[in-house]
Amino acid sequence: VAEPSAPDGDIVYGRRPVAEAKRGRRRVRRVWTNDDLAASELNRLAGSPDHQGVVAEVDPFPYADAASLLRADDAIVVAVDQVQDTRNLGAICRSAEAAGAAGLVIPSRRSAAITPAACKASAGAVEHLPVARVTNLAGWLGEAKKGGAWVYGAEAGAPAPHTQADLTGRVVLVLGGEEKGLRRRVAESCDLLVSIPVRGRVASLNVSAAAAVLLFEALRQRRGA
Amino acid sequence: VAEPSAPDGDIVYGRRPVAEAKRGRRRVRRVWTNDDLAASELNRLAGSPDHQGVVAEVDPFPYADAASLLRADDAIVVAVDQVQDTRNLGAICRSAEAAGAAGLVIPSRRSAAITPAACKASAGAVEHLPVARVTNLAGWLGEAKKGGAWVYGAEAGAPAPHTQADLTGRVVLVLGGEEKGLRRRVAESCDLLVSIPVRGRVASLNVSAAAAVLLFEALRQRRGA
Repeated sequence: VAEPSAPDGDIVYGRRPVAEAKRGRRRVRRVWTNDDLAASELNRLAGSPDHQGVVAEVDPFPYADAASLLRADDAIVVAVDQVQDTRNLGAICRSAEAAGAAGLVIPSRRSAAITPAACKASAGAVEHLPVARVTNLAGWLGEAKKGGAWVYGAEAGAPAPHTQADLTGRVVLVLGGEEKGLRRRVAESCDLLVSIPVRGRVASLNVSAAAAVLLFEALRQRRGA
Repeated sequence: VAEPSAPDGDIVYGRRPVAEAKRGRRRVRRVWTNDDLAASELNRLAGSPDHQGVVAEVDPFPYADAASLLRADDAIVVAVDQVQDTRNLGAICRSAEAAGAAGLVIPSRRSAAITPAACKASAGAVEHLPVARVTNLAGWLGEAKKGGAWVYGAEAGAPAPHTQADLTGRVVLVLGGEEKGLRRRVAESCDLLVSIPVRGRVASLNVSAAAAVLLFEALRQRRGA
């Protein structure tokens, strides 16, 4: 069994991520299973022991063009400012795909990218969800507003609860990194900052939980439920 | 610096989990930081490299009495059937605490427990959220119903959308394990099965994302928003 060939190939691992890659946008170049290779070799190829006996070499992740994501007049786009944890990024992709979002926008620097671990955490959803990288997230949010989108930033403690914001139509939901939240310029580029009302003593939501709550509140409003 | 002393102590690691343990219910016996120990020794004590330079030995996790959780007439309890991944369990605890839930119920067998990794994934929320173990989850749900709670099970594809269920009052939200969902007897013990309406091609939610969506829908309904 040959090693991965082309230096520009990506690795995808895990039963579901590999299955979704096969029915997704990028070519699957080859697949190794535990019939072909020992677990230690699969671990090394995957860079993780979480491969469930399946590792694939695929074409590089096809990042989308950010401008294309807001074409539909009811598009929901999630923008994530400097999330560091690839598992969080993958979890956000999974929820966004499940919510039928038009895509995800991430900064090209100081952010997790669509790594093999992100693919795994997304359960393969990244094979179907358009993900775009932009060099200047605040600038892109400004463009989105000019293009007719409403841009909502999630910020703990913001006076407006997320359920009072109108999340129908063309919207961008902006989430901050795990520790620091939204950078100032990104927050200033939003039409409105909203918070998810919390109780409790720790009373903080993980960024992927916050993304899921906002996405499905948007869907609820769109159903009029 | 001494090793952990009593064999029944638990380990908590990470800045925020240790800080929450200090203001939580259980005694913090000692704390090691990267001023005291090398990273490799902290790794070994924590059983993980994700300790951020802080590891503590604390009293064993004080599991709650399940019967006590539904006392309040507006109590929200989350019950989780056989979730395997400690990170998912911790993430659910974090969202439940943030939502002001009265507690979490897990089966005592074939379920992740409140391990050091679960404490970390909860960002310390487990130090404040009551968590109870029950030997028979279906049986406990039956008791909850007799006690006046409405028991809602989350099941992909169930005809009733979660937003149409009345999630006010005394409710139990039941979530299934990562792969198999709710066991049949557990599903049969629910008053109503609800689904979170999804779109997309993968169109499946992680169990911790589903928990967050249900919890904050319950809070929305309680605010009348």
